Amino acid sequence: MTVERPLDILNNARNKKVIVELKNGKQLVGILKAFDIHINTVLENTEEKENGNTTRKLGNTFLRGDTIIMISPES
Amino acid sequence: MTVERPLDILNNARNKKVIVELKNGKQLVGILKAFDIHINTVLENTEEKENGNTTRKLGNTFLRGDTIIMISPES
Amino acid sequence: MTVERPLDILNNARNKKVIVELKNGKQLVGILKAFDIHINTVLENTEEKENGNTTRKLGNTFLRGDTIIMISPES
Amino acid sequence: MTVERPLDILNNARNKKVIVELKNGKQLVGILKAFDIHINTVLENTEEKENGNTTRKLGNTFLRGDTIIMISPES
Amino acid sequence: MTVERPLDILNNARNKKVIVELKNGKQLVGILKAFDIHINTVLENTEEKENGNTTRKLGNTFLRGDTIIMISPES
Amino acid sequence: MTVERPLDILNNARNKKVIVELKNGKQLVGILKAFDIHINTVLENTEEKENGNTTRKLGNTFLRGDTIIMISPES
Amino acid sequence: MTVERPLDILNNARNKKVIVELKNGKQLVGILKAFDIHINTVLENTEEKENGNTTRKLGNTFLRGDTIIMISPES
Repeated sequence: MTVERPLDILNNARNKKVIVELKNGKQLVGILKAFDIHINTVLENTEEKENGNTTRKLGNTFLRGDTIIMISPES
Repeated sequence: MTVERPLDILNNARNKKVIVELKNGKQLVGILKAFDIHINTVLENTEEKENGNTTRKLGNTFLRGDTIIMISPES
Repeated sequence: MTVERPLDILNNARNKKVIVELKNGKQLVGILKAFDIHINTVLENTEEKENGNTTRKLGNTFLRGDTIIMISPES
Repeated sequence: MTVERPLDILNNARNKKVIVELKNGKQLVGILKAFDIHINTVLENTEEKENGNTTRKLGNTFLRGDTIIMISPES
Repeated sequence: MTVERPLDILNNARNKKVIVELKNGKQLVGILKAFDIHINTVLENTEEKENGNTTRKLGNTFLRGDTIIMISPES
Repeated sequence: MTVERPLDILNNARNKKVIVELKNGKQLVGILKAFDIHINTVLENTEEKENGNTTRKLGNTFLRGDTIIMISPES
Repeated sequence: MTVERPLDILNNARNKKVIVELKNGKQLVGILKAFDIHINTVLENTEEKENGNTTRKLGNTFLRGDTIIMISPES
């Protein structure tokens, strides 16, 4: 993986499936559509997961960046 | 969905019904009327929900952006 | 309701009764007298409420914006 | 009460008795001597109160603005 | 006490004994040697106190401003 | 170790294994690929650990800087 | 001790042993190698301590400034 700056990994993950960990302990899985320097993030086909189980289907979601711990592209 | 920047999804959701998740664990459902770069947000016909039940009807509400986790337009 | 920017709803609510939700779980009800871009807010004839009951009468109050979750004008 | 901007209420309260609510749940009562745009605040003859009882006499105090929920001038 | 701006009270307290209240509930007592606009603060001969008892002697300490609730010069 | 500025230690750790402590109490171990001045950080071959046990394999991860307590290069 | 500005005490402590208190309640002891205006800090030969006992040896560590309560040079 070649990553000069941290946001490069997010650029490479556009239109791919990512796992997003939130500070409230929940996970969201969806297709990464957009993000900005605050890490405000838009997911498509979002599913909320707790302990590996899908708890809600949320469709398109806007996430405020400061609620995000980690974004991990599916490998 | 075509979304260049995260706020595009909110622009597309103007005058549509959205679900807003707050950091205090509550949900608000209402019509998205306005937002700014801080994600300060105005909803119309706002209903507060906990565990899927409407707990309060709030009419028009101004939400301070830093209390918001997620905004999800109804699909 | 016509609201271009989020602060418009607060401008329209000047000298009217509003409900303010604070991050500490309390509610304040009073007449909105002033606010700024940080959402620092001044209320007149403020009453503090918990679970719908008035717990204190506070007169005029200055609220630091970052303690506010939501401001809802009485409709 | 005429208040154009939120800080006007604090300007009018200089040298008067105010109640300050802190994020840690405590109250301070004292004479408002100074404040700035961060709401850093100086009180004179400060008394710390919990549940209406004076728990400590603190004399002059400097309060960091980000610990303040609310400042209410005694009416 | 004449205090035009909040930091004046700290300027007047240089080289004097102050009590510092921290957001973690602890108190530090020491000689105020320096501070800046973030309220980053240096104390000399610092003692940590809980419930009025000295729990540690810390000598010189640098305190990050955002951990401070209150600074009270000994009168 | 010669370190003029704090970020030098991270520069020296590029492409090396690091332990990252998060504010939510978890640890991540992986290869440091990138970071920026906000300490937004990208790890490769990331493993999540709790109490020394690997709890998840996460592959590549983007970490928002404000969730990080500490980054420690493996010596 | 002559300290004009708070960071002077950290400058004087370079290459000396310091105790760092973190907001998560832990202590780190190590040699101060670098810091910046955000109080991002690098320690060498870092030991993590809880209740006076060494719980981990961490070698070199980068600490994000906003997790630090206090830095105290060993006298």
